[in-house]
Amino acid sequence: MPKKLDEMRNSTWRLFLTAQIQVIEQIQERLSAANLPPLEWYDVLWALKDTPEQRLRLSELAEQVLLSRSNLTRLLDRLEKQKLLRREPCLTDRRGTFAVLTEAGAAMQKKMWAIYSQGIAEYFGDQLSDEEVKVMQQALKKILGVIAIHH
Amino acid sequence: MPKKLDEMRNSTWRLFLTAQIQVIEQIQERLSAANLPPLEWYDVLWALKDTPEQRLRLSELAEQVLLSRSNLTRLLDRLEKQKLLRREPCLTDRRGTFAVLTEAGAAMQKKMWAIYSQGIAEYFGDQLSDEEVKVMQQALKKILGVIAIHH
Repeated sequence: MPKKLDEMRNSTWRLFLTAQIQVIEQIQERLSAANLPPLEWYDVLWALKDTPEQRLRLSELAEQVLLSRSNLTRLLDRLEKQKLLRREPCLTDRRGTFAVLTEAGAAMQKKMWAIYSQGIAEYFGDQLSDEEVKVMQQALKKILGVIAIHH
Repeated sequence: MPKKLDEMRNSTWRLFLTAQIQVIEQIQERLSAANLPPLEWYDVLWALKDTPEQRLRLSELAEQVLLSRSNLTRLLDRLEKQKLLRREPCLTDRRGTFAVLTEAGAAMQKKMWAIYSQGIAEYFGDQLSDEEVKVMQQALKKILGVIAIHH
């Protein structure tokens, strides 16, 4: 049976939520100041780049992205219009479609990462001691582990 | 000068992002299974409830909410239509408008909190040792502190 949520854990959840949203806001402002698209775009570009062939079935991509699951189709339309990715039919499965990263998409991912990684370092990484990073890493893995089991 | 982002901090950021989004997804599913509105609604109801008079100027509310800053006006329209809050003109400042929590809004906040707090406990709080909670709390406060300074 789950324990009742105690005050310390409740306030830590609130901090967890607030800190993440505020760090992301800062990073979004920097991207926007550099005339770059929002983090949701990065999320898709990175997911494609992180594969051996720089392509994913749309169903796989939907599982990989973190930030825009509910509006993914519209987001992909926008990225395709900007020629950052293209959709390609799957030859062995008529129902399947791939999203494929273009060269322009890979270049955009790199450009955005320069700003994004700087933001992560400044607002997140530089604030944490090695010990804190280690403890958080371990705690976050436990959280993700329990979700993987439930799912 | 900011340090370069190291691999350990980079992967911890990714875990931080992923864990939060996945915990929120689980909680959204539970709210939806209980026929309750999404967490964005809770965010507004809680912000109003957390004030002495259960009301905030719209500009103050915009600063308090975490989840729907960009679409706040539309979200408030929906909440008002459901009679969970009402807008009231500010008598001393013609340009100002208040959002005021209704009784139905306070009841909804309570109902949602029963599910939400259970989700926080199960997916977040119960996974963490007291020591991990302490370290995370302290780390997250440092992150929020540096954003408050920059802002």
